[in-house]
Amino acid sequence: MFQHSSSHPIQKYMNPARLHDIKAFTKGKETPFLIIDLSRVGTLYDALQRSLKTAKIYYAVKANPETEVVKLLAQKGSYFDVASRYEIEQLLKLKISPARMSFGNTIKKAKDVQYAFKKGIRHFATDALSDLENLAKYAPGSLVTFRLLLPEGGSADWPLSRKFGADPEMVYELALEAVKKGLTPYALSFHVGSQQRDINEWDKALKTCKTLWDRLKKEGVMLSGINVGGGFPATYLHPVPETKEYGEKIKSYVTKYFGKEKLDIILEPGRSIAGDAGIIFSDVVLVSRKSEKEKVRWVYLDIGKFGGLIETLDEAIKYPILIEGKEKETQVSGVILAGPTCDSADILYEKFKYQLPNSLKAGDRALIFSTGAYTSSYSSVAFNGFPPLKVYILKK
Amino acid sequence: MFQHSSSHPIQKYMNPARLHDIKAFTKGKETPFLIIDLSRVGTLYDALQRSLKTAKIYYAVKANPETEVVKLLAQKGSYFDVASRYEIEQLLKLKISPARMSFGNTIKKAKDVQYAFKKGIRHFATDALSDLENLAKYAPGSLVTFRLLLPEGGSADWPLSRKFGADPEMVYELALEAVKKGLTPYALSFHVGSQQRDINEWDKALKTCKTLWDRLKKEGVMLSGINVGGGFPATYLHPVPETKEYGEKIKSYVTKYFGKEKLDIILEPGRSIAGDAGIIFSDVVLVSRKSEKEKVRWVYLDIGKFGGLIETLDEAIKYPILIEGKEKETQVSGVILAGPTCDSADILYEKFKYQLPNSLKAGDRALIFSTGAYTSSYSSVAFNGFPPLKVYILKK
Repeated sequence: MFQHSSSHPIQKYMNPARLHDIKAFTKGKETPFLIIDLSRVGTLYDALQRSLKTAKIYYAVKANPETEVVKLLAQKGSYFDVASRYEIEQLLKLKISPARMSFGNTIKKAKDVQYAFKKGIRHFATDALSDLENLAKYAPGSLVTFRLLLPEGGSADWPLSRKFGADPEMVYELALEAVKKGLTPYALSFHVGSQQRDINEWDKALKTCKTLWDRLKKEGVMLSGINVGGGFPATYLHPVPETKEYGEKIKSYVTKYFGKEKLDIILEPGRSIAGDAGIIFSDVVLVSRKSEKEKVRWVYLDIGKFGGLIETLDEAIKYPILIEGKEKETQVSGVILAGPTCDSADILYEKFKYQLPNSLKAGDRALIFSTGAYTSSYSSVAFNGFPPLKVYILKK
Repeated sequence: MFQHSSSHPIQKYMNPARLHDIKAFTKGKETPFLIIDLSRVGTLYDALQRSLKTAKIYYAVKANPETEVVKLLAQKGSYFDVASRYEIEQLLKLKISPARMSFGNTIKKAKDVQYAFKKGIRHFATDALSDLENLAKYAPGSLVTFRLLLPEGGSADWPLSRKFGADPEMVYELALEAVKKGLTPYALSFHVGSQQRDINEWDKALKTCKTLWDRLKKEGVMLSGINVGGGFPATYLHPVPETKEYGEKIKSYVTKYFGKEKLDIILEPGRSIAGDAGIIFSDVVLVSRKSEKEKVRWVYLDIGKFGGLIETLDEAIKYPILIEGKEKETQVSGVILAGPTCDSADILYEKFKYQLPNSLKAGDRALIFSTGAYTSSYSSVAFNGFPPLKVYILKK
């Protein structure tokens, strides 16, 4: 509904003057490709930091690991949440200190723990006994963040499964065990679901944390921080609260439960920093109908689910889409949007009908906004022979 | 249920002596990786050709585009169904004649048609007027196969959406238009859904083809072939009929409808040729429980949905899985199987509980059978920093 709804003007996704610069930069480039507007990454980081001044921001590298993005955030003083030894290697090459990294993936091999410790990393997340045993053995004395599994709730576009975390009782046992094994319990962490639109979810989670915090305190286990995870949104079709509101409310919940207790507040944003900084440019390959009777058009783009838009799975994330030069057309109708591969599952949106111009035809150019996170590094290496999504960084 | 059910013995997926050779070949290789048993590719191709001796086999390159696989099939006389200009480039580099290729993707840019024609390809699939216009303009005189959209049916593990094909009435119009535009109507094609277990689906589809064939004949449009698509299965957990049965039945349906009419029968297999020739080797990273009360274990492998096992989406394809050295354990219980990334959607099987040994622990090795098709080239380029799935070819 983006194209012609006054509640979703183009201004919401991109400053028109800036879009003009970006289009100039794309001249001669062959679609599909992703443009990252680096200055926007910086702006989004600053806004988040401003909204919660005392928080330590650990950028989730997986959201967008482009060198220029990581370098800029490092310059700004960001810490980094890393998901694998490969991300550690990448950051070390960029001369980022291991003291600024947290190995946030609870699923890691013994040899990955060994590698990380050897390289100087002293901060790990965990949610299971056998991983804790590896940490004690291969990363002795390190700081440990315990990941809590919370009941599902709220309105997340990309909801969490039960894959990560352990229930509070088990986390309690793990924290006691960590002390016995010579590790240093550091923080409790949770995640409310990616693109979480209901800020109250943080309230509930922090309440659970406080109960656990106090129980551990009674046993002499003094924690130092709360990691409130990611979940801060990018600007997709569904309206979301402003960054400022997230920061203020989370701060008020922390105060409500922890009062004047001195503690580190840790954020792990990815989507909210990289998402809005990206635009995918894609050409329309084919517009067709399946029969004379059917009114709905099939629109095939040169990018699909396996070329970088994997988060359209179950039509979860709905990106704003604009057809270049046809932004103001009033004759529009619903379409099914699909990717260019021979895979019949490569359909982006079928239940939700994007309203696109009736004059749409092969060769028209689609701008897919807010695609800076969870796109390029997720694209297939050679699906149907297509190369991975190209990325260009606009530095100024 | 694979591990200990007599209806799914290991013999069904792999000859034990051959498995011994394969294991020897994998020594010292770091998981995860895919082994392709090249001789098996040849055997599977031969079996399919034997089951339908007069058919022309167009191998669907996208299923597994490994150079050695393509070269072997070329030596055996296979034709090739290509999905993109990149696959064409690859095959041309391997000195495969363009006369043996069909551009089977109905979604293609004008410049891709130009490219293919310039390189010598004279056989294209289509399902839409604007694509047909491109063919007339940029690939004049070429053979055209018309893709039919059939009502869904049968029991396909990876069912087709309505993404490809047009309804019979529209195909009728397209074929007449093709003649007017100087193109050469060659065949009707359809696809019954990948991993189709119900052979009767081909009966229904061929009936539709025959009606259309006769209508076009009356208009003077003489078609030359029927492309019965792919859909022939690999050996996953659900039992499937034997290759021989597919061949014999399809032949009988063609005879039933077309009698002694002289026509080319075209097959487009991918999965049934490459699938069973592959085994993915993956190490267990972590085994855990979410709470003391929950009995079900979470088992995290070092390969997941985005590392090559994308066809576990919606738990569609269920690969046979075996834990090395623990094949005969009788103490087993259901687990949730997940991948190694920080993505909460990276879960392989949760509803369907694989029965794995109670003694399972980190470091154990899982063999995932029948993973030669739609895996390696579909893996992400750098998801969470993890590199794409490595492939090793066992040539002898």
